[in-house]
Amino acid sequence: MQPYGAMDPNVSSSSRPSMLDIIQKKRDGKKLQEEEIGYFVKAVTQGELRDAQIGAMLMATWLKGMEPEETLALTREMATSGRVLKWPEKWRGLLVDKHSTGGVGDKVSLPLAPALAACGCKVPMISGRGLGHTGGTLDKLESIPGFRVSQSPEQMKKILQKVGCCIVEQSQELVPADKILYALRDVTATVDSVPLATGSILSKKVAENLSALVLDVKIGNGAVFPTLESAQQLAESLVSVGTQLGINTVAIFSKMDSPLGRRVGNSLEVLESLECLDGGGPTDLRELVTTLGGTLLWQCGRAPSVSQGSARIAKALDDGSALGAFRAMLQAQGVDANTAKALCHGTEEQRLQVLGSPRVQTALVAHCDGTVHQILAMPIAQVLHALGAGRTKEGQRIQHQVGAELLVSVGERVRKGMPWIWIHCVSLELSDANRSTLQSALIIKDTEPFVPGPKVVKTLLPKVSEVPRKTDT
Amino acid sequence: MQPYGAMDPNVSSSSRPSMLDIIQKKRDGKKLQEEEIGYFVKAVTQGELRDAQIGAMLMATWLKGMEPEETLALTREMATSGRVLKWPEKWRGLLVDKHSTGGVGDKVSLPLAPALAACGCKVPMISGRGLGHTGGTLDKLESIPGFRVSQSPEQMKKILQKVGCCIVEQSQELVPADKILYALRDVTATVDSVPLATGSILSKKVAENLSALVLDVKIGNGAVFPTLESAQQLAESLVSVGTQLGINTVAIFSKMDSPLGRRVGNSLEVLESLECLDGGGPTDLRELVTTLGGTLLWQCGRAPSVSQGSARIAKALDDGSALGAFRAMLQAQGVDANTAKALCHGTEEQRLQVLGSPRVQTALVAHCDGTVHQILAMPIAQVLHALGAGRTKEGQRIQHQVGAELLVSVGERVRKGMPWIWIHCVSLELSDANRSTLQSALIIKDTEPFVPGPKVVKTLLPKVSEVPRKTDT
Repeated sequence: MQPYGAMDPNVSSSSRPSMLDIIQKKRDGKKLQEEEIGYFVKAVTQGELRDAQIGAMLMATWLKGMEPEETLALTREMATSGRVLKWPEKWRGLLVDKHSTGGVGDKVSLPLAPALAACGCKVPMISGRGLGHTGGTLDKLESIPGFRVSQSPEQMKKILQKVGCCIVEQSQELVPADKILYALRDVTATVDSVPLATGSILSKKVAENLSALVLDVKIGNGAVFPTLESAQQLAESLVSVGTQLGINTVAIFSKMDSPLGRRVGNSLEVLESLECLDGGGPTDLRELVTTLGGTLLWQCGRAPSVSQGSARIAKALDDGSALGAFRAMLQAQGVDANTAKALCHGTEEQRLQVLGSPRVQTALVAHCDGTVHQILAMPIAQVLHALGAGRTKEGQRIQHQVGAELLVSVGERVRKGMPWIWIHCVSLELSDANRSTLQSALIIKDTEPFVPGPKVVKTLLPKVSEVPRKTDT
Repeated sequence: MQPYGAMDPNVSSSSRPSMLDIIQKKRDGKKLQEEEIGYFVKAVTQGELRDAQIGAMLMATWLKGMEPEETLALTREMATSGRVLKWPEKWRGLLVDKHSTGGVGDKVSLPLAPALAACGCKVPMISGRGLGHTGGTLDKLESIPGFRVSQSPEQMKKILQKVGCCIVEQSQELVPADKILYALRDVTATVDSVPLATGSILSKKVAENLSALVLDVKIGNGAVFPTLESAQQLAESLVSVGTQLGINTVAIFSKMDSPLGRRVGNSLEVLESLECLDGGGPTDLRELVTTLGGTLLWQCGRAPSVSQGSARIAKALDDGSALGAFRAMLQAQGVDANTAKALCHGTEEQRLQVLGSPRVQTALVAHCDGTVHQILAMPIAQVLHALGAGRTKEGQRIQHQVGAELLVSVGERVRKGMPWIWIHCVSLELSDANRSTLQSALIIKDTEPFVPGPKVVKTLLPKVSEVPRKTDT
């Protein structure tokens, strides 16, 4: 540390970068050298910095941005801040994963991972818990009694060997720098920074040692980067950095104005995932699962085109092979065989018996006649969060049964007094404020019915110039 | 905390400001409301924020700045974050203090406080320790055996009653918010921010409950704000906010390219202060002491003009009354009567006996003939710092005897081989690197002798419109 070094370039003379110099450089909008970024990430990992320095650096980065080379270095340094997973040589080219920038009702991982496994891929999916308005895949899975999200790299390898997919929490040994930075971004208003988000998302994927990655970049009012423009920037950064770090990376843009599917809330989303794995479920969910999965199959050369890949995924959902992989994954991750069977091959009633039922169910009714133009994701997420479905701080217990079921879809005609949403509560009841927030989610217009467009908006492929040349093929 | 509230204005609905919202607002360059600044300062004081949030807020403020109203609110909130000093009614109008933005060899406070006391003022001077390249007044005074910088508000009042001045450390009860913010600014490259510096400097003065304040704003390569432009911004902010908070505030700009006086280092600066208090000492030191003191006497109505005020201060230095006040202050702050006598009225030898002598003294010689154009303060400060005269972190012990004596002045002609500086070391000796850094400080040009201008460059007075109207006069 060199106090006042900030003010006078003559003071600092050490050849080793000092954190004060690095913060100052980023503050002044200058480009950081690879070794400076390396020093920062190492110092974060080893607990050598004061939190205030990390906060200042995050804010300077949010405000001044990073050049592509800086983001690349940040991601690489973060990825190697801990252990990097190793896989058997014969899995080369088969290791795939998906990342979503987060949305309301987004349960895609649950059917997608086993569907990909059923198509011969290896899916070492490392997921997160919910914090804020979006649910976490791990929270959803933990609404299944016995499901263990904590698995060592060795256990992951065994499960991938046997089942083909696993969905686990980030182990302490993996990307420790991200753990620290992620938690601090969350409290310093620096979450929506393209370089910081790129580093955070991709470092974990690089540490997974993937062959191919598909990104589900959400746009719309329920998304972290709401506009197409900001989402596009993030997607370009992710695809470019991912590609340069040796992962075949493609981004898909999908709309996140309305919730995905018709069910929101942890155990309700497991139920809906099972419907999808039965070959049914909401159209938008199935569309996203088959598109993302199909893209990955095409990326890793297991399908000649995205559409043929999508058809293969659809087949896996329809013929029960994806459901079989899901059931095997549940058992491999600690769920009792009878529970897994009841859940995967039982009736809706048996499924609900496993997942537990909410104590109170309340229906809200439409306030006028007309056509549903939008069902805003945000107000629904906000109320469910307040009712106990989400966390306001790390480690908080959540209520798995709290959730919402949409009874209408965008484009449908409704009549005044018709129920449009069920809210499932556990200990808290709906307040008047909750009700009015929820009602603000239903946008009805007095126009002709219309057909909403598909969820998937566009696809972003890597630039050929950024694809690393392979020396061993 | 509202995670993701950062991204969507719909999420946040609480009427109480949240820190995440406040950070985001400043990050986005928006003006903070008084209550938001109040919330931030209270949360800092009560330890409710994470250091990372403070770091992010400091950086956002450095980069986006604050409007004058925000800086005013910040200063007021910081000032009242702890206890505010109360003084007897009869001292109204007499309570004065000086603040310097920090310079090398700046020992002005030591002769100035007793000179003002000798002129009938009350000077409750709260000083700091050195951190970085500038020395701290408290460190200088602590080179006098027995001197106690820690004095309660009650003890301060007693000393002011009896002596008229005291120089003390900031008590724990005073401006606790500044303690926290100051330490974090130092490690986050956010020291040289006009609003943050204004809040830090003035909050302490407001808590001192002063009548008048003179600011010694340094400019030049040894200053925190090196250019006249940046120093001018700080001075305008200080004068405006100080005036609005009821303190008669004036700023003086003085040059800080060369060290002030001829001696740098804690005990050496005490020696030079005593020379000044004897009515002698270097011209530039005396010029600054009389100008700052004269301005304050004019500000509080004890002199009809600055020049007449300066003449009164000069008289107090010449007639021994300032030295008498200094001696009384030393005794009131714990120095043994014999020690105080030996120091104040002894020979240079007796003074050195009290302050201790350095173990090693090394002279450096001029490398060519010519005229001294500059003696750069920075390289000298840097080497002394490395030799133990300063701290690199809080709480570190320093070597009071380490210092430098300049043997030449700017404008003097020198011959090659002539000694130009004495370096006083204690345990470390001068390395080759130290020598070459020191030699870089002496700028000799082969031109005619020239007369350097005065240290004091200009004065900034408050705007009449900002002076609060008194209702009780």
